[in-house]
Amino acid sequence: MNPTYKKLLDRWLEISALASAAGVCGWDQETMMPPRGVEARAEQEAALSGVIHDKVIDPALGEMLRDLAKNPSGLSESQRVCVREWLRDYEHSIKLPPELVREMARVTSLSQAAWVKARKASDFKAFGPWLERVVALKRREADALGYKVCRYDALLDNYEPGMTVAELDPIIQQVREGLVPIVRAIKGSKIKVDDAILKRGYPEAGQEALCKEMMAAIGVDPTAARLDRSAHPFCCGIAPTDVRITTRYDERWLPQSLYGVIHESGHALYEQGLPAKHYGTPLAEAVSLGIHESQSRFWENFVGRSMPFVRFIFPRLRKRFGKILAGADANSFYRAINRVKPSAIRVEADEVTYNLHIVVRYELEKGLLDGKIKVKDLPALWNERMRSYLGVTPRNDAEGVLQDTHWAQGMIAYFPTYLLGNLNAAQLLHALKRDVHGAEAHIAKGEFAPILGWLRKNVHQHGRRYKPAELIQRATGKPPSAQYFLDYLKEKYGEIYRIERW
Amino acid sequence: MNPTYKKLLDRWLEISALASAAGVCGWDQETMMPPRGVEARAEQEAALSGVIHDKVIDPALGEMLRDLAKNPSGLSESQRVCVREWLRDYEHSIKLPPELVREMARVTSLSQAAWVKARKASDFKAFGPWLERVVALKRREADALGYKVCRYDALLDNYEPGMTVAELDPIIQQVREGLVPIVRAIKGSKIKVDDAILKRGYPEAGQEALCKEMMAAIGVDPTAARLDRSAHPFCCGIAPTDVRITTRYDERWLPQSLYGVIHESGHALYEQGLPAKHYGTPLAEAVSLGIHESQSRFWENFVGRSMPFVRFIFPRLRKRFGKILAGADANSFYRAINRVKPSAIRVEADEVTYNLHIVVRYELEKGLLDGKIKVKDLPALWNERMRSYLGVTPRNDAEGVLQDTHWAQGMIAYFPTYLLGNLNAAQLLHALKRDVHGAEAHIAKGEFAPILGWLRKNVHQHGRRYKPAELIQRATGKPPSAQYFLDYLKEKYGEIYRIERW
Repeated sequence: MNPTYKKLLDRWLEISALASAAGVCGWDQETMMPPRGVEARAEQEAALSGVIHDKVIDPALGEMLRDLAKNPSGLSESQRVCVREWLRDYEHSIKLPPELVREMARVTSLSQAAWVKARKASDFKAFGPWLERVVALKRREADALGYKVCRYDALLDNYEPGMTVAELDPIIQQVREGLVPIVRAIKGSKIKVDDAILKRGYPEAGQEALCKEMMAAIGVDPTAARLDRSAHPFCCGIAPTDVRITTRYDERWLPQSLYGVIHESGHALYEQGLPAKHYGTPLAEAVSLGIHESQSRFWENFVGRSMPFVRFIFPRLRKRFGKILAGADANSFYRAINRVKPSAIRVEADEVTYNLHIVVRYELEKGLLDGKIKVKDLPALWNERMRSYLGVTPRNDAEGVLQDTHWAQGMIAYFPTYLLGNLNAAQLLHALKRDVHGAEAHIAKGEFAPILGWLRKNVHQHGRRYKPAELIQRATGKPPSAQYFLDYLKEKYGEIYRIERW
Repeated sequence: MNPTYKKLLDRWLEISALASAAGVCGWDQETMMPPRGVEARAEQEAALSGVIHDKVIDPALGEMLRDLAKNPSGLSESQRVCVREWLRDYEHSIKLPPELVREMARVTSLSQAAWVKARKASDFKAFGPWLERVVALKRREADALGYKVCRYDALLDNYEPGMTVAELDPIIQQVREGLVPIVRAIKGSKIKVDDAILKRGYPEAGQEALCKEMMAAIGVDPTAARLDRSAHPFCCGIAPTDVRITTRYDERWLPQSLYGVIHESGHALYEQGLPAKHYGTPLAEAVSLGIHESQSRFWENFVGRSMPFVRFIFPRLRKRFGKILAGADANSFYRAINRVKPSAIRVEADEVTYNLHIVVRYELEKGLLDGKIKVKDLPALWNERMRSYLGVTPRNDAEGVLQDTHWAQGMIAYFPTYLLGNLNAAQLLHALKRDVHGAEAHIAKGEFAPILGWLRKNVHQHGRRYKPAELIQRATGKPPSAQYFLDYLKEKYGEIYRIERW
C-alpha cells in the first residue's frame, strides 16, 4: 500500500471510529439515558465533536490528501474514491470558521428550545427572531462554503452532494404540477376509503412483536441491529454490523409503528448493506440523504403499501390480532393504508400528498435564503401555499409553519432530500421490476431476498463511490426523473379511487 | 480563577468528558450492542483510549501541573486537591511506555480469550503460558511505575491509592487468623440453616419489579439511573447524574438478582453522591476500589442482610410472591439469606467465608509477582489453601484456580480491594450506629435517608479529596481496622448459629 495512503487511512479510520462513538452517545441519549444525564451528555458530545473536528482540519492531513489527489498513480480505484471523498470532507471542514461553527451550535440549540415553546403556544412571533438569526448564520455558512449560482446550492450540497437549485427547480416544478391535479382528482372521486380498521386498538406488545417480525422478514440482520423506542423515530448506523432503529407506538393507529418500523428498516438495510470490510472509509458510508430516504421509502411505501405485501402481511396480522380484525380482509386493509387525505401535517401525510408538503417548504426556505421572503411573512405564505397546493388551511401556526423542527435546528435545504427519496424509490422500483423476474410474486410470498439483493448490488454496496445522480443512472439505466413517481401514483391510485383519466 | 488553573481545568474536563463517552460505549457493549457490533466497538474504544492517553501525557499539561503544585498560592483548597490528583494521574500515565500499554492490551485480550476456553475445559495447562506472559508484563509495569519495597505495591496503588503490602500483610493475616476459627465453629454448630425458601421459583418479572422497588427505596435516584441485564453484573458511573447498574436473574435463586441489585445500588449511590457540580474533576471521582466496594457491601450485607432490613422487605416480598412464600416468615427468610456454607466459588460465597477466598488469591498473586510461586504450581497451591482455610476441595481447576477472570485480564492486586471493602463497610457501620440515633429502627421502617445522608456526608461528597485511610479515619474517628468486621461476624453469626464463645 502507498505509504501516504496508509497514513491517511489510519487517520480516517480513527476519525471514523470516534464519530461512531459519538453515534453511540447520540443513540443512547434518545433511547436509554436517564433524564438527568442530559447536561453531562452535552459535555461528552461537545468534547467528541471537538476532537473529531481538530483531527479533520489538521493541515498535514490536507497536504497529504492534495498530494495524493494530484498524483494518484499507484492507487487502486477504490483508494482514489476514498481520497476524493476525504478531500471533499476536509475542504468542507476547513472552509467553516470555528467561530461560526460554535455560534451555529449555540444559536441552533437555543432556537430549538425556543421553537419547542413557540410550537406549544402556536406563537410564531416568539420564534421569528430566532429563525432570523438562524437564517443569517446559514447565509454566512453558505458564503463560507462557496457556490457558483446561489447560496442554497452550498447548503443543499451538505445533504445531497452535487445537487444544485438549477437541477432541483425543474424537478420541484414537475412534481408540483403533476401532483396538484392528482390530489384534486382523488378529492373529487366518488370512492371513499375507510381507515377505521387501523384505529381499532392494537395492544402495544403485539405491535412490537409484529414490528420485529417484519424487520427480520424483509432482511434486517437481527444480530447486527436493535429496535427501541424514542420520542422521534430514527435510524442510527454505528457500523454496518451495528445499526439501531427506533419507533413509537399508538394503540389507536397501527401504521405509526408498523410503517414507521418498515421505513426505518429501509434505512437499516442500507446501513447494513454498506460493505463492512470498508468500515471507517467513504466506501462504507451512505452517499446522500436523498439516496438514504429512497431506501426507507422504498420499503415503507413501494413495497410495504403494495397489494402483494398486504397479501403477505395480512394473514400474519390476523394471527396476532384475530379478533380485532374481525370483518376485515386484505383488500380493505390495503385500501385503508393507502387512504389519501390532504392534511396540514407533513409527518401524517399519505404518499400522494407528502411531496407537496416538501414543495411548500422548499419554495419558502429558498426565498428566505435569497432574501425574497421575510421571516415575518412566512405564516401567511405558508397557509396560502397549503391552500393552493393541497386545499388545506392549517388551523394555526403550530399546525402550519411551526410544525417541523428542521429550520430551528439550522437544517435548511434538508427537506428536498425527502422528496428526492420518493422520486428515487419510484425509479428504483421501476428498474427492479424490469430486472427481477416476478418481483411482486416474491413479495406476496414473503421472499424479500431477491428484492434486497438487487438493492444491495445496485445501491448499498457502493457507499460514496458514485454521486447520487450517477448511482441512479447506473442502477436504472436512466438519469433521475420525477416521471416514474408520477406514473406510479397514477397507476396505483387510479385503481384505488377508480380514476381512469387523470 | 488562576489562569493556569483555568487552562488545566478545561483540559481535564475535556479528558473526563471523553472518558465518560468511553464509559457509555463500554456500558452499551455489555447491555445493548448487537453481537456483530463487537469488532467495530473495539475500534471505537481503542480510538477513544488513544485520544485520551495522548491528551493526558501532553508534556505541556505536565509542566503546568508541576508549576502549580510548586506554587499553589492563590489556589483554593479544592483546587489544590485537583492539582494533586491530576498530577498523580499524569505521572502515572507518563511512566508507562506506550509500547508496554499496547502489548498489555494485546496480551490480556488474547489471554482473556484463552482463559474462557481453558475454564470451560478445566484445562489449566492451556492457560498457564498466558498467565506467565501476563505476570511478566505486570512485572514490567510495576518496574515502570516504581515502588519502594516490592512490586506488588506499585500495582496495588493502581486500585487502592497509597496502600502498600507493609500495611496490607498484617490485615490479611488478622483476617485469616480471625476467620478460620469462625468458619470452623459455624461448621461445628448443631444449628442447620435451610435456604430452600430462596429456591422456590420466583418469576423473573416479579424479581425485576422488586429490584427496582429496592433501588428506589434505599435512595437511588431513578431519574439519574438505569437497571439492565448483563452476563456479569456491574455498575457504570457515566456522571453523578447518569449511573447504570446491571443484574442477572435466576428464577431458582432469588438472592442472585435481589442482593446483586442492592450491591450494585450501593455502588450507584456512591456515584450519584459524588458532587455533580464538580463533574469532570477528581472531586467527583471515586477515591479507590476499596472504598467503592465498602459502599456496595454496606448496602448488600450490612444493611440488606440485617434483621431490620428483612422486617422491612419481607411484607413486600409477600405482597409480590404471596403463594411462593407460603409457610415462611421474616425469621426464616433472615436465616436463609445468611446461611454460611464454605464453597469453592468466590462469587457464591456468604459474607463469613468470602474474605478467605480473597486471602487465597492475595497470597498467591503476591508470590507470582515476586517470583516465589511458579505459575505451574498454582493449581496445587490453590487447592491446598482452600482446604486449609475453608475446608473445601475444588472438584477441578474450573472450580478452583481458573474460576475468576481477573488475572487473565491483567488485574493483579485487584482482589484485596474486595476484602478492604468488607472491612471498611463494617467500620463505617460501627460509626454510623454511633452517630445515627435508632439506625436499625429506621431501616426496619424503610427510612433509609438518615443512613444515606451519613454516607453522603462522610464518604460520597469527598470524591478523591482524602486518601482511603484518611477518609475512614475522618468518617469513623479511628484508623482502618479489621476488628470491626470480625466483631460484627461474631455477633451476628453467634446469634444465628447459637455460638456463645468463639
